[in-house]
Amino acid sequence: MSDPASFFQIDNAEGGGDAVIVCEHASNDLTAAANALGLGADQRQAHIAWDPGALGVAKGLSSALDAPLIHATASRLIYDLNRPPDSPGAMPARSEAYDIPGNRDLTPRQRLERTRAHYIPFHAALFSLLARRLASGRPTALITVHSFTPVYFGTRREVEFGIIHEADDRLARAILARDVGLLTRLNDPYSAADGVTHTLALHATPLGLGHAMLEIRNDLIATPMAQQAMADRLAPAIREAVKECL
Amino acid sequence: MSDPASFFQIDNAEGGGDAVIVCEHASNDLTAAANALGLGADQRQAHIAWDPGALGVAKGLSSALDAPLIHATASRLIYDLNRPPDSPGAMPARSEAYDIPGNRDLTPRQRLERTRAHYIPFHAALFSLLARRLASGRPTALITVHSFTPVYFGTRREVEFGIIHEADDRLARAILARDVGLLTRLNDPYSAADGVTHTLALHATPLGLGHAMLEIRNDLIATPMAQQAMADRLAPAIREAVKECL
Repeated sequence: MSDPASFFQIDNAEGGGDAVIVCEHASNDLTAAANALGLGADQRQAHIAWDPGALGVAKGLSSALDAPLIHATASRLIYDLNRPPDSPGAMPARSEAYDIPGNRDLTPRQRLERTRAHYIPFHAALFSLLARRLASGRPTALITVHSFTPVYFGTRREVEFGIIHEADDRLARAILARDVGLLTRLNDPYSAADGVTHTLALHATPLGLGHAMLEIRNDLIATPMAQQAMADRLAPAIREAVKECL
Repeated sequence: MSDPASFFQIDNAEGGGDAVIVCEHASNDLTAAANALGLGADQRQAHIAWDPGALGVAKGLSSALDAPLIHATASRLIYDLNRPPDSPGAMPARSEAYDIPGNRDLTPRQRLERTRAHYIPFHAALFSLLARRLASGRPTALITVHSFTPVYFGTRREVEFGIIHEADDRLARAILARDVGLLTRLNDPYSAADGVTHTLALHATPLGLGHAMLEIRNDLIATPMAQQAMADRLAPAIREAVKECL
């Protein structure tokens, strides 16, 4: 399902698997923003604009688990769908070491327009998808797929695969307990305390869904082939962990 | 704003006050259900079908606080908007001492239809309203208005005004600290542990909104005049408490 006027897409909406996959930072498309927010080509390719490789892994997981996938089709710099509308990070004026000229001095009206165009339709669609599954008696876990940069503010990150949870840690720990052949850590390189679990807080916790946010170091998923291999590596562990927690 | 095809209504949508008022159990209208769910006139008037008096109080608070009000226009027995779709209480086959014939043996398809018609549009509209306020920089507390029966399963309840909270208790305690001339208790006659705070969990907690669920004993708000008087009694305390917590 793809609505040309919207900035998200749902693949495999009727997927019969036990999970729903979310990829909030799937795209670095800045065409919806005036003058591409004033960013150059380098910045548009950098992790500040999106989570490189995450969409490829999310698509691979969606296919392997027969799971619906909802993903953004515009850059997180226009609106970061994993942040509430009153968060400075929703439309950041600065990201890591970069200024974002097109996000400087946004008026309340501009913030409202972006929230209406990006945040509200995405989360309303995800809410509707989840509510329909629950009404139909389909067991559902919520999995969000992200990637992180190997070097952040000049510091190298050793962790390869981070599993982050919101209120309920069961699914995250069940995935952690399986050997996927990666240097894996719980709540690393971020945790809920860093405000990075908004999608899980908004959907998984109030609906009582098992959930996990997967963070994959982006140098491990730099090519379509590597993204597919990562999905193949993670899918069995996730499938078993979801079964265990439902 | 009223959509003839929907089962909710929003009053004063652009209200500039610091609160949004919700009344999930405002209506005992059963015309949307085949054969009125098999219920007689007595049951349709009873508290199992709605929260008698709550809408009048909610309208009075909306007016006094210049707050948007969203309220249901169909009975909670068709869909209880304060319950998630997989909860048995969302479309209860039994409520207190009464069987609800039209809710017996619902198929997954019937549950899905009611969820699509009632639950999803109501909460999507509330989510959109709250997100737009936050994007515009408007401080917002979420107040839900309910009433409870003076006698439940044969036991008389003494409490007159209950204030219930979800994760954040600040606003509830700030209201409790004010003298409104009623026998007032925190988390009585219910609490979040009873599963009665779904609306707050779905909207207030993930968006970081101060919140409270107001429960008023329904014999105190049996007439339009009593409902207005109750709103006049509570409005100053709520206004001050909201100001204190924002």
